[in-house]
Amino acid sequence: MAYDSSMAAGGMSASPSNSENPTVAIDVMSGDGGLPVIMDAVRRLLARRKDVHLMLVGDEARIEADLQRKPAPEGRTTIVPATEVVTMEDSAAVALRNKKQSSMRLAINLVKEGRASACVSAGNTGALMAISKFVLKTVPGIDRPAISTTIPAIDGHTHMLDLGANIDCTAEHLYQFATMGSILAQAVDGTAAPRVGLLNIGSEDMKGNEQVRDAAQLLAESNLNYTGFVEGTDIYTDRVDVVVCDGFVGNVSLKSSEGVARMVSHYLKQEFNASVWNKLVGVFARPILKSFGDRIDPRRYNGASLLGLRGVVIKSHGSADKVAFANAIDIALLEIALDVPNMIRTRMHGAVPVT
Amino acid sequence: MAYDSSMAAGGMSASPSNSENPTVAIDVMSGDGGLPVIMDAVRRLLARRKDVHLMLVGDEARIEADLQRKPAPEGRTTIVPATEVVTMEDSAAVALRNKKQSSMRLAINLVKEGRASACVSAGNTGALMAISKFVLKTVPGIDRPAISTTIPAIDGHTHMLDLGANIDCTAEHLYQFATMGSILAQAVDGTAAPRVGLLNIGSEDMKGNEQVRDAAQLLAESNLNYTGFVEGTDIYTDRVDVVVCDGFVGNVSLKSSEGVARMVSHYLKQEFNASVWNKLVGVFARPILKSFGDRIDPRRYNGASLLGLRGVVIKSHGSADKVAFANAIDIALLEIALDVPNMIRTRMHGAVPVT
Repeated sequence: MAYDSSMAAGGMSASPSNSENPTVAIDVMSGDGGLPVIMDAVRRLLARRKDVHLMLVGDEARIEADLQRKPAPEGRTTIVPATEVVTMEDSAAVALRNKKQSSMRLAINLVKEGRASACVSAGNTGALMAISKFVLKTVPGIDRPAISTTIPAIDGHTHMLDLGANIDCTAEHLYQFATMGSILAQAVDGTAAPRVGLLNIGSEDMKGNEQVRDAAQLLAESNLNYTGFVEGTDIYTDRVDVVVCDGFVGNVSLKSSEGVARMVSHYLKQEFNASVWNKLVGVFARPILKSFGDRIDPRRYNGASLLGLRGVVIKSHGSADKVAFANAIDIALLEIALDVPNMIRTRMHGAVPVT
Repeated sequence: MAYDSSMAAGGMSASPSNSENPTVAIDVMSGDGGLPVIMDAVRRLLARRKDVHLMLVGDEARIEADLQRKPAPEGRTTIVPATEVVTMEDSAAVALRNKKQSSMRLAINLVKEGRASACVSAGNTGALMAISKFVLKTVPGIDRPAISTTIPAIDGHTHMLDLGANIDCTAEHLYQFATMGSILAQAVDGTAAPRVGLLNIGSEDMKGNEQVRDAAQLLAESNLNYTGFVEGTDIYTDRVDVVVCDGFVGNVSLKSSEGVARMVSHYLKQEFNASVWNKLVGVFARPILKSFGDRIDPRRYNGASLLGLRGVVIKSHGSADKVAFANAIDIALLEIALDVPNMIRTRMHGAVPVT
């Protein structure tokens, strides 16, 4: 793909042509499993998506060795050498200032330069957010990017944000998250007026902290389809399409949910192993339990968007295996196809209240 | 039980003799199911616990009519007439100021007067907290009571607080919650030095908001067995015995968890109903699924403590059925037997850092 210098000059990073034969930059050095897992995910994705080109950013020698061991389809990957790695222990500030040759930084640079339409990393969330914000910048009307993901619900799914990028949020920030979430839900689900709920600890107007109460007022006066306060239980029903909260609350909610889901799976396994008879029943129930397990498999939902940037950046769970990381690349491809950054840029215009 | 005037004069409300033949005041007018559900729970509890006396606070005529329809054991209940009811819509301030003859207020008064050793209500949490704090007062060293409950974990259980009483907390408040949670875990589980974790969005020291970081420092300098930051996933493992957070975060975490558990149960039912064959397998799997369902049944964990008061106050979930509400009374009886308010009073002494 040719280097398009106009892209680097402060415009949106994704060029329109990218959506047909998209190129995605992969931070190969990220994640708990490191390079071998990411490379397996790369091969998995390339086998499934014949139209996609992947730029593999990381330790050149190790990437080449891995490709010699297990080849990837000819001509569909480019190696971009990176000499540094952002670790999970690096502070966002250190990663931003001192690791300019890291795989994470170079992957984001590729998006900025228009050489890739998106980047995907399973690395340090704080660093990914800080570097993305610095390199790509936010779209006008957005002060801070937010992390958003799709959460399974009893009937359908919910888009939830922020999930950890912004710990202390003003009412205005929550309002911006609501707008971005609504635009994303429109794009992904084709819903004309997504229902937006504000996460709170009770549905009565008087409850909640000051930011949440003030955000409720901004939302009530906006042109969004704001339906009021929702509680934690409502995330997993079909009550709203978008759930908005600050990053501390969102992160705790998401991780608590993960914890419960794991515990429940553990209990279910224990019960089907509690006796010889239970194990026998378990043999017959295996396809049913497998189908159930697939539905709550967190790998299916792996890949969170850093919304509000002038480019697509997807954060994979650190513990992602090849299946999960490949799903995160799929989410990057979906956001490229929908041109989410441009949608947010154009639709935010005029939607921001005068403050 | 004789009225003990010394109890009403600012001392601890539970008299020592109460732990042998405890009396519990029940807010009969509370909960989504109202009086019929609470009365069924009363009969259930009395059948199980022959040593307990219950004071039924509420609409005298309706309680009597219910007892005529389905009698309770002779001489083991006392009706305490109340002419008002705190509704779910009442603000805490209105309930406190204007509803002095409500079933909730009178039930709490009975604890203050030493006529009951605990009270249990499924009503408005904010009102219950405000009235309890006003009538019973907190023990020295505790600024605000916290709502605490027992959460099932993969191996064992976790005590978590605050779950919604205190939306904005200082580091000092979080420290006080940690101390109370530790004392409760010592009492309930017999653990010498319960492991205390502070809920955060990452385990690195730099993460989290200011209050959490400052609380971490107070805890590190305290004599508690503070083990550092924990994440939402850790609530459901055996990593710590006590999880501390502010009431907004705690409430969202708990309700998100409830939502996931419900969704998972729903999915499991759907899978076992997906075909005739699946239904047939489901017949054989029924006892296994029943045993599994019992383990994640939220009714088992119903009953949250308002810790830090000079008396035992237990909040039942509003949607509690008779099984769940009876469990909440059991928790009241456990805290009476352990004399939790006095334990907190005596052990807080000296544990509070100089600020």
